[in-house]
Amino acid sequence: MPADTRDRLLDAGAELLRRQGYSATGVKQIVDEARAPVASLYHFFPGGKEQLGAEAICKSGAMYELLIPAIFDVAPDPVTGVRMFFAGAAEHLEQTGYEDACPIATVALEVSSRSEVMRQACEGVFQSWISAGLARFPQVEARTARELTIAMLCALEGGFVLARAQRSTEPLLIAGELVARAVEAALAD
Amino acid sequence: MPADTRDRLLDAGAELLRRQGYSATGVKQIVDEARAPVASLYHFFPGGKEQLGAEAICKSGAMYELLIPAIFDVAPDPVTGVRMFFAGAAEHLEQTGYEDACPIATVALEVSSRSEVMRQACEGVFQSWISAGLARFPQVEARTARELTIAMLCALEGGFVLARAQRSTEPLLIAGELVARAVEAALAD
Repeated sequence: MPADTRDRLLDAGAELLRRQGYSATGVKQIVDEARAPVASLYHFFPGGKEQLGAEAICKSGAMYELLIPAIFDVAPDPVTGVRMFFAGAAEHLEQTGYEDACPIATVALEVSSRSEVMRQACEGVFQSWISAGLARFPQVEARTARELTIAMLCALEGGFVLARAQRSTEPLLIAGELVARAVEAALAD
Repeated sequence: MPADTRDRLLDAGAELLRRQGYSATGVKQIVDEARAPVASLYHFFPGGKEQLGAEAICKSGAMYELLIPAIFDVAPDPVTGVRMFFAGAAEHLEQTGYEDACPIATVALEVSSRSEVMRQACEGVFQSWISAGLARFPQVEARTARELTIAMLCALEGGFVLARAQRSTEPLLIAGELVARAVEAALAD
C-alpha cells in the first residue's frame, strides 16, 4: 500500500468530520473521498473508523494550533491579538458559507459520551491549544494566562455554535470582544 | 392515532437529539423509544425526521428557556445570577456523567449547513434565549444587555464543548466567571 494513501485517508476523514461530524461519516464515504480501496483503510487503521477518526482529529488539531502563534505573534499586543483571532475566525466562517468552523467541536459534542477513544483525541487537542494559548499571555501570572486562554477557547467554540445557527458572525465577534476586554483588564492589574 | 403518541414521539426525538445529535438518530430509533408504530411518526410529522426534529428542538428550547428566569429571578443580583447559572449547568453536567449539556448545540453544529429547516429551528431557539436573557439585565442599556446575553450563551455553549471533551467542569466555570465579571463591570459603568 502506498504511504500517501494513508495521508489521503486521514485528510478525507478530517474534512468529513469537520463538515458533518462523526456519526454521519461512514467508512465508505471516507474511502470514496480519498479515492482509496476499503481494504487500505483497515490496513492503515486496524481499529477502523474510530482509529482513523482519532488520528484525523489530532492532525486537524495540530494544524489549527499553528493559527495561535501565527496570529498572536504578529499582533502588536495580546488584546489586539485576541481581536485579530476572532476577526479572522469570523471572516473565514463567512467566506466558507458558515461551514468551516472548528474541526473538532461537532465530534467533541457528539461522541464524548460514546467513544472514549474519540473523546481522548478531542481532549488532547484542547489541551494542546490551551498550552499554545497561555504562552501568548506572558505578561500575566500563569494561572490567569491559563484561565484567559480557556475562556477564549470557550468563547470561540460557543461563538461558532451560535454563528452557524444564525448565519451571522455577530455572536463570535461579541464573545471575542468580551475576552479582549478581560485580557485588557488582566494586563492593567 | 392517540394524541399522546405525538408527545411521546417528540419527547423521544428531543432526548435522542440531545444525547447523540441528528445524524446518529434514525426514525426507527425514535419510534422504538417512543413505543409507537412507524406510521404514527409520518401521520403526525408528514415531513418525517426533519419535521419531528425541528419541533423537538423548539420544544426542548422552550423548556430550557425557563431556566433563565428560574435562576436569575431568584438571584440577589445579575452578577450572582450569572455565577448561579454556570454553577447549575456545571453541577447538572457532572451529575449526568457529562452527558446532559445543551439540547440543541450538537444539532446546531451538525446540520446548520445541511438542513435549512433544522438550522432555522436552532436559530429560533437561540433568539428566544437571547430575548429571555437580555430582560435579566434591566440595569444596563438594551444594547449592552443584548451583548452580555449573547456572550453568556457563547460561554455556556463553548464551555459545554470543552467540559464534555475534558470530563471536567473547569472550562464551564472559568468561562462563566469571565461573563460574571463583564456583567459586574457593565453594572459599575
